[in-house]
Amino acid sequence: MIVNLTRTTLAVATPVVPSHGALRPLGLEEVRITGGVWADRQAVNGRATLAHIEYWMEHEGWIGNFDAAAAGTVAAHRAGREFSDSEVYKLLEAMAWEVGRSDDAEVDARLESLVARIAAAQESDGYLNTQFGRPGQRARYSDLEWGHELYCFGHLFQAAVARLRTRPGATDGLVDVARRAADHVCATFGAGGLQRVCGHPEIEPALAELGRATGEQRYVDQAALFIARRGTGTLADIELGRSYYQDDVLVRAATVLQGHAVRANYLAAGAVDVAIETDDGELLAALTTQWENTVAHRTYITGGQGAHHSGESFGDDWELPPDRAYSETCAGVGSVMFSWRLLLAQGLPRYADLIERTLYNVVATSPSHEGTAFFYTNTLHQRRPGTAPATDVAVPRATSSLRAPWFAVSCCPPNVARLFASLGAYVATVDDAGLQIHQYVPAQIRTHLTDSRALDVDVETDYPHDGRIRIVVRTSHDEPWTLSLRVPAWATGATLTTPGESPAPAVPGTTRVTRAFKAGDVVELQLPVGPRVVVPDARIDAVRGCVAVERGPEVLCLESVDLAEAGAVRDADVGHVRLTSRDSVREVDGQVVARFEVDAPAAAAWPYEDVDPDGDRRTTAVVETPLIAYHDWANRGPSTMRVWLPST
Amino acid sequence: MIVNLTRTTLAVATPVVPSHGALRPLGLEEVRITGGVWADRQAVNGRATLAHIEYWMEHEGWIGNFDAAAAGTVAAHRAGREFSDSEVYKLLEAMAWEVGRSDDAEVDARLESLVARIAAAQESDGYLNTQFGRPGQRARYSDLEWGHELYCFGHLFQAAVARLRTRPGATDGLVDVARRAADHVCATFGAGGLQRVCGHPEIEPALAELGRATGEQRYVDQAALFIARRGTGTLADIELGRSYYQDDVLVRAATVLQGHAVRANYLAAGAVDVAIETDDGELLAALTTQWENTVAHRTYITGGQGAHHSGESFGDDWELPPDRAYSETCAGVGSVMFSWRLLLAQGLPRYADLIERTLYNVVATSPSHEGTAFFYTNTLHQRRPGTAPATDVAVPRATSSLRAPWFAVSCCPPNVARLFASLGAYVATVDDAGLQIHQYVPAQIRTHLTDSRALDVDVETDYPHDGRIRIVVRTSHDEPWTLSLRVPAWATGATLTTPGESPAPAVPGTTRVTRAFKAGDVVELQLPVGPRVVVPDARIDAVRGCVAVERGPEVLCLESVDLAEAGAVRDADVGHVRLTSRDSVREVDGQVVARFEVDAPAAAAWPYEDVDPDGDRRTTAVVETPLIAYHDWANRGPSTMRVWLPST
Repeated sequence: MIVNLTRTTLAVATPVVPSHGALRPLGLEEVRITGGVWADRQAVNGRATLAHIEYWMEHEGWIGNFDAAAAGTVAAHRAGREFSDSEVYKLLEAMAWEVGRSDDAEVDARLESLVARIAAAQESDGYLNTQFGRPGQRARYSDLEWGHELYCFGHLFQAAVARLRTRPGATDGLVDVARRAADHVCATFGAGGLQRVCGHPEIEPALAELGRATGEQRYVDQAALFIARRGTGTLADIELGRSYYQDDVLVRAATVLQGHAVRANYLAAGAVDVAIETDDGELLAALTTQWENTVAHRTYITGGQGAHHSGESFGDDWELPPDRAYSETCAGVGSVMFSWRLLLAQGLPRYADLIERTLYNVVATSPSHEGTAFFYTNTLHQRRPGTAPATDVAVPRATSSLRAPWFAVSCCPPNVARLFASLGAYVATVDDAGLQIHQYVPAQIRTHLTDSRALDVDVETDYPHDGRIRIVVRTSHDEPWTLSLRVPAWATGATLTTPGESPAPAVPGTTRVTRAFKAGDVVELQLPVGPRVVVPDARIDAVRGCVAVERGPEVLCLESVDLAEAGAVRDADVGHVRLTSRDSVREVDGQVVARFEVDAPAAAAWPYEDVDPDGDRRTTAVVETPLIAYHDWANRGPSTMRVWLPST
Repeated sequence: MIVNLTRTTLAVATPVVPSHGALRPLGLEEVRITGGVWADRQAVNGRATLAHIEYWMEHEGWIGNFDAAAAGTVAAHRAGREFSDSEVYKLLEAMAWEVGRSDDAEVDARLESLVARIAAAQESDGYLNTQFGRPGQRARYSDLEWGHELYCFGHLFQAAVARLRTRPGATDGLVDVARRAADHVCATFGAGGLQRVCGHPEIEPALAELGRATGEQRYVDQAALFIARRGTGTLADIELGRSYYQDDVLVRAATVLQGHAVRANYLAAGAVDVAIETDDGELLAALTTQWENTVAHRTYITGGQGAHHSGESFGDDWELPPDRAYSETCAGVGSVMFSWRLLLAQGLPRYADLIERTLYNVVATSPSHEGTAFFYTNTLHQRRPGTAPATDVAVPRATSSLRAPWFAVSCCPPNVARLFASLGAYVATVDDAGLQIHQYVPAQIRTHLTDSRALDVDVETDYPHDGRIRIVVRTSHDEPWTLSLRVPAWATGATLTTPGESPAPAVPGTTRVTRAFKAGDVVELQLPVGPRVVVPDARIDAVRGCVAVERGPEVLCLESVDLAEAGAVRDADVGHVRLTSRDSVREVDGQVVARFEVDAPAAAAWPYEDVDPDGDRRTTAVVETPLIAYHDWANRGPSTMRVWLPST
């Protein structure tokens, strides 16, 4: 296969730089988020989360594993799960983006210190993993199903890409470590090598990107080999089935994401990279179909994916239980990776719609307001308040009633950190016609069109609190260019005001303004962010007879804390409420409220009776109570919560 | 602690013989099932299932493990999971009950042959397990969390109890093997020994019963020690939490069953045995509360228990998803064990109600009509037809769309087999006042009252097809005695006709007739077995807006096969139906039918819209289609199925 990497793909400080596609991504140096909710999240991430993660990885011995590997003692004293190396690499990646975003010298120094410890553990042939291959350890690649060696390499490569693109002149050696490891992978798993794949995809998008960032076509070719091999059953048939790790069907033959939701999204992301770099239209079409079917039938209203705790996996179509939503934070990050690559390839606003939904309602839900505790899973219905998790020890992964500072499997915290640190990269793109804005945040965009004309634009908004988004053009042009703005699918009734014109309707999709803008020109998009009552497809059985409330891009929820303050009885349990009517949902002083009947069901010895369904209801109160953004829940102590509100 | 075992507890051919309690169980020699659906099941079990199980255990090497252990080669060649010994013991138990039930000489010979192979593997100190303790194997009791050694002993003891009570003079040595093993367990885990418990309860009811059957008080005392130790955290804190194996709370302090549903029920059953034998009223009260709360809040309409695939465990109260119902067959068997012991202790009909529900709708659902394929889990909603599982290899445990001949974890088939073979023991009991009939099957009851008067009664019925149950007394008595008949909780409108009287109302609960019966006297109970439309408690969110249909003790379901025959469109998918009205459910010529609207939902790119919930419906057909007994589903090839029928 032939891959054409051009020099233009190498230099942008952004996670994904395809050699071609509908849109060209912008780097962190081109898009600076200057305020609003995402700037706050980035500040907390840089100020608190990165240090918190490093503390815990040191505390748990995951970083120390590299020291022990260098000292030759790791076989006897290795700490953590088999994939803990990867968490350290994700922290490195987060640090690299943070340095690119904020020029934080302290973070830069901590990154360099970590790289030195990791580099010391690399073996002479490029292999690097603290779990395998030394005397007293299992042999390299002897457990591709669960060993995660290639998965770990993938995160190492993504960290190196971030470093290379944000500090191309850095002398810490991270990029060299990654290149040596990538060379080792190509030598070991190339066309003449082991015809195997890793149980956990991740190396596929990572190798593709390392190839793009370094100009090494071999890496992209190796990614393509891994994609082509996937689904041929080289991994063992386990109790969860080969579908768990997507080894039961060729990527190009699949019609929907299945199996482990993180694995599925990482694989799909890498497959898009390969499809682009190899001009494989058939593969790209298959991935597009997979995305469409997954979004239409297997995605929570939050954008969350993965309905099963067992296998952390997708369920069947329409199987989306709110109370047992696994909706792993990492699957949300993976979904953003997949959607972003399709957006760059095809330019369709639906991909940015899902990214926005997922950022607000999955990724932003995971960390606490302080950035030092996290949800691993993101349930849409919490029936028991639960208890505060320990703050001094790592807890099991799947607790969900309150955020925990650390997990025995802590893939999610550094995954959130690397995405938050690089968030500016997902705001806007350019193409031959002009600029596209996909996400609405206060921002300074300082870029140039593909014909090299400088283009400076500021975005001024209080979105999503307020629906007004002002695009202020700071440079004058003699020739026209096109400003493209995404109108979210939910934004029926949006309007666009161009200089000197009255507001005009802007239908959901992409709205475009083409003109020779002058400095000072303002384009104003008005999105209707008021509350919307949303009904699920009748085939999503688990939420029949319920509605959800959204406001702008945010999914709202009812939390027991608010129900208690509203004076409801029975321990303010959200299990006893029923929305009085859709019309009762309204916004009062910027706060969405709704009216609920609170029932006091009779205590029955057996919960299935041949009675009139309404005959047994005993409404004890009708209360009006606030609905809050789902991503804000569980920040006020133990509580119960539900996104889907019974309405029948 | 003091245990008083009387000789009267030793001789009855029945699984559970408490030293005292409200009711005295009857043995297989006293209650003979003579016809009807359960006789058919017993015949298939004896004719096909036992041989099928033995074939697979031989094929998989699980029986061969004992030969290898005796030969000293098992460390290198052991087959199967760590608990496979227990499956062989459950087969032994099933065979022992079958011999007691049918006097089948061939089964008796196969049993003796198996016992000889097992006995050869027992070590000189009584220890017996093919997985641990030999050179090249892990040390005995080095993995109490997952090793299942005591669990395996438990099933060995239950097999020995069955053998002792059905063939007290047998010379095969099974009882001696069990006694030596039990002595070893008492010596190892007694008051001065290891203060530990097994990760999987089972030895508790087994030791208690072996004590009852042999008169060895030490065994009952050891069971009591294991119950007292449970919940003190002697097992490791695993990712699923200690609640998974009920080691986080004392048995007497728990208020509801939690964690792994089979473990929970086996433990509770053993705890009832201990509470009875130690006259521990507080413990019995706690177990009664656990039963009540579990039935009221954590049990499927089928009687199934265990809502989570992850951990095969109970969920929170009201968390009862039909599509992800784990409802393991073994948990149903365990529930029968727990309920039966409480029934013997307290005599309340609610326990027999749950046993009946569970027998008809969980246990009977597992085997195919031919008795040679099984459900491990028992989902209440199947969305995909699935494909027929392989018939020549064992499949993973949790597939559920079609029955499989064998599983890598095959606890369920022999569990069903031992319960079916011993089913006669659950039909009736006696007490000082007379006879109680709990389950309605054609039967001959040949027993005696506690004052030694002979009591012969025949039960004549076509239940559950027909609601008429005739109790024909075959012996005359000068003194009155009381015939007690269970009127199921659902049987509103039942009537009782006593000799010479007109039918009188019999309210749900227990109805009693006291008189000096004469030979030929007939008491007739008429149960209203017509279809009932049943509504779930509003807090069972997963089935909001749905109803279920029951007929007598059977839960019905809609299977796509019938929908297709009724002419419905869209691949006869049960995901597109809505009951037109509750009144449309009716019985026609012995067949329950219901009328459904079949919708053709629009294909939407995103399944959550702010639209009128009814505005998008496009009904393409209205069909009247049969509902079948849930336990009969999936006997006609791949299909989709649902118990809960959308009605809004």
